[in-house]
Formats: sequence, structure tokens, C-alpha cells
Amino acid sequence: MDHEAPGYTDNKAALLSRLKRIEGQTRGLHRMIAQDKYCIDILTQVSATTKALEAVALTLLDEHLHHCVADAAAQGGPVADDKIAEASAAIARLVRS
Amino acid sequence: MDHEAPGYTDNKAALLSRLKRIEGQTRGLHRMIAQDKYCIDILTQVSATTKALEAVALTLLDEHLHHCVADAAAQGGPVADDKIAEASAAIARLVRS
Amino acid sequence: MDHEAPGYTDNKAALLSRLKRIEGQTRGLHRMIAQDKYCIDILTQVSATTKALEAVALTLLDEHLHHCVADAAAQGGPVADDKIAEASAAIARLVRS
Amino acid sequence: MDHEAPGYTDNKAALLSRLKRIEGQTRGLHRMIAQDKYCIDILTQVSATTKALEAVALTLLDEHLHHCVADAAAQGGPVADDKIAEASAAIARLVRS
Repeated sequence: MDHEAPGYTDNKAALLSRLKRIEGQTRGLHRMIAQDKYCIDILTQVSATTKALEAVALTLLDEHLHHCVADAAAQGGPVADDKIAEASAAIARLVRS
Repeated sequence: MDHEAPGYTDNKAALLSRLKRIEGQTRGLHRMIAQDKYCIDILTQVSATTKALEAVALTLLDEHLHHCVADAAAQGGPVADDKIAEASAAIARLVRS
Repeated sequence: MDHEAPGYTDNKAALLSRLKRIEGQTRGLHRMIAQDKYCIDILTQVSATTKALEAVALTLLDEHLHHCVADAAAQGGPVADDKIAEASAAIARLVRS
Repeated sequence: MDHEAPGYTDNKAALLSRLKRIEGQTRGLHRMIAQDKYCIDILTQVSATTKALEAVALTLLDEHLHHCVADAAAQGGPVADDKIAEASAAIARLVRS
């Protein structure tokens, strides 16, 4: 097997259903534009979709810290440092996106 | 007819194809989680999807200001004020999301 | 005189006092670090300061739309287009910061 | 002594001088408003100040993960879990601010 169970295993079902809902939201945005809906109503939906994606990211990150990062930190040394540097970079991308 | 052409009419085809791509990205996120992909790789994709949605929002907003808000402002009075207050509220939602 | 009254004139006193408070918050952050305060407590204060700055930006932008942009839009033509393009670019910087 | 050296000790001097600069930026914003400067120019400076604060937050968070969280994770058990939950909450506040 080429990878272990990821950190988000316990939340996997919930994450999958949240992403299904987000996919539905993006389809809804497409439909609103196809039907010439009012700009502001579309923007409201874009904000809601962005917030839903952000919530998925925060769940993934929380699980990643509790599992992958915690395990690496328990080992210490360069493994721990690399894992934490990688998590930090992902957090910076999220904060800036 | 229950509404006029929205502000984004000139960009409609481009917006529709960008939203198709974003829908594809959310489906990709679903697949990555279904396949137990590594948390950080998923987070990178979430950031890319969020940025793509943000770019759609900024295009919609720009068109809205250039058309709907500009037209209302040309009329002046309460119509203009209401339109601008509505746009301001949408901008605040975007900045905070 | 090299400029007219800016759009935020009616809110000027309130904006000045909000910026005084924000300056105080940044001085507080400096003091927390000088005194080796706990990272998480400092981060909480950074988030509060960022939100306060964001609120100032949204007030300035709202006034700018209600006054400068509305006046330019009432004139129409390239003056209106330029003013709106400039506001759009400022909104994009805010959304991305 | 009522607290250990915080995670950001190695960056303390740099953080202090960055905060001095941010304090100067907020004073500059105050001056711009006092002098009735143009809204858009002020907004540009607000975006720069927000980005500078965000960079401070990301440095603090990175150091916090590399030191406080890594140490707690090495101990394991509830100490580790609490520390990670606390860091996650701070990250969520940053992403949303």
C-alpha cells in the first residue's frame, strides 16, 4: 500500500458529503449565471461557497495537526521539522487565499 | 421579461466556463478524499479552488460596478444610494469570507 | 487647493479615533512580544487588529463609492469608467489581503 | 518565573522591529486621513498594513508549531491534544480575519 490512512479518516464521510454539497453549490452558481440572475444574488452564493470550502480546509488542517503532525513531532528530529514546515506553508496559503 | 441583461453579460461565456472548471475542481477534491490522498495535497487544491471562486466574484463585482451601479448612480437620488449600499454590503461579505 | 473634500469627510472624526485605537493595538502587540507573552494570546490580538483595519477599509470604500464613484458615474464616459476601474482594483487588493 | 521562553524567542528582535514599522504605518494612515488624502491611496496603505500584520501572525504561528506544539506533541496525551486544539482555533481565527 502506498499510503497510510490519512489524518482525516474519522471525518471522511462527513467531508465527502460536504464536498458533494459544495459541488452542488458551484453547479447552482453556473445555473444562476446561465439564467442571467442578479449579480448581487450570485455574489452572495459565491461567499457562501467560499466559506464552505474554508470550513473543509480548517477541518482537514485540524485533523492533519492532530494526527500527521503530532505523530511526526513525537518522533522529533528532521522528520518533525519538515512536517511542521509543510503544515506552516499550507496555513500561509490558506490565510492568503 | 422579469429582468434586464445583468452587468456580466459580456463575460457570461467566460464565467460559465470558469464555473465549469471550479465544479471540476470540487469533484477532484471529493475524489482525493475518497482515495485517502494526503491532507496537504488536498489543502493545496482547496486553496486553488478558493482563489478561482474569488476571481469569479471579483469579475462579477467589477461588472456590477461598471453597469448596474454606474447606471443607478447616473440616475442619482435614493436609487443610487440603495444600489451602492447593496454593493458595499456584498463587498464586505467578500472581504470577510 | 489641490484636492476636494474626500468621500469620508462625514466620518473623518470617527475614522481618526479608530486609527488611534489601532495604533494603540499595534503598540500593545509590541509590548506583548517584548514581555515574552504567550504566542496564542498575541495571535488573538493580531486577529483583532486585522479585523479593526478591515473595518476601516470597508468604511473608506463605502464612502468612496457613495461619493467619488457616484459623482464620476453621474458624469459618465471615461471619467466614470476610470473611477470604477480604480475602485475595482482597490477592492481586489482588499479581498486578497 | 511565570512563563518559559516563548516559541518566537529566536525571532523576537525581528518581530519587534516589524511591529514598530506597523505602528508607523498606522500612524501614517491617521495622518493621511487628517490631511484629507484620497480614499484609494489610503486603502492601498491599509492593504499593505494588513499584509504586514498577517506576515507577523504567520511567523508567530510557525514558531509556535515548531516549538510549543512540537514539545507538547512529543509528550503526547491530553497535553498534546489541548495544545493542537488551541493552535487550530487560532488558525481558524486568522483564516477568517
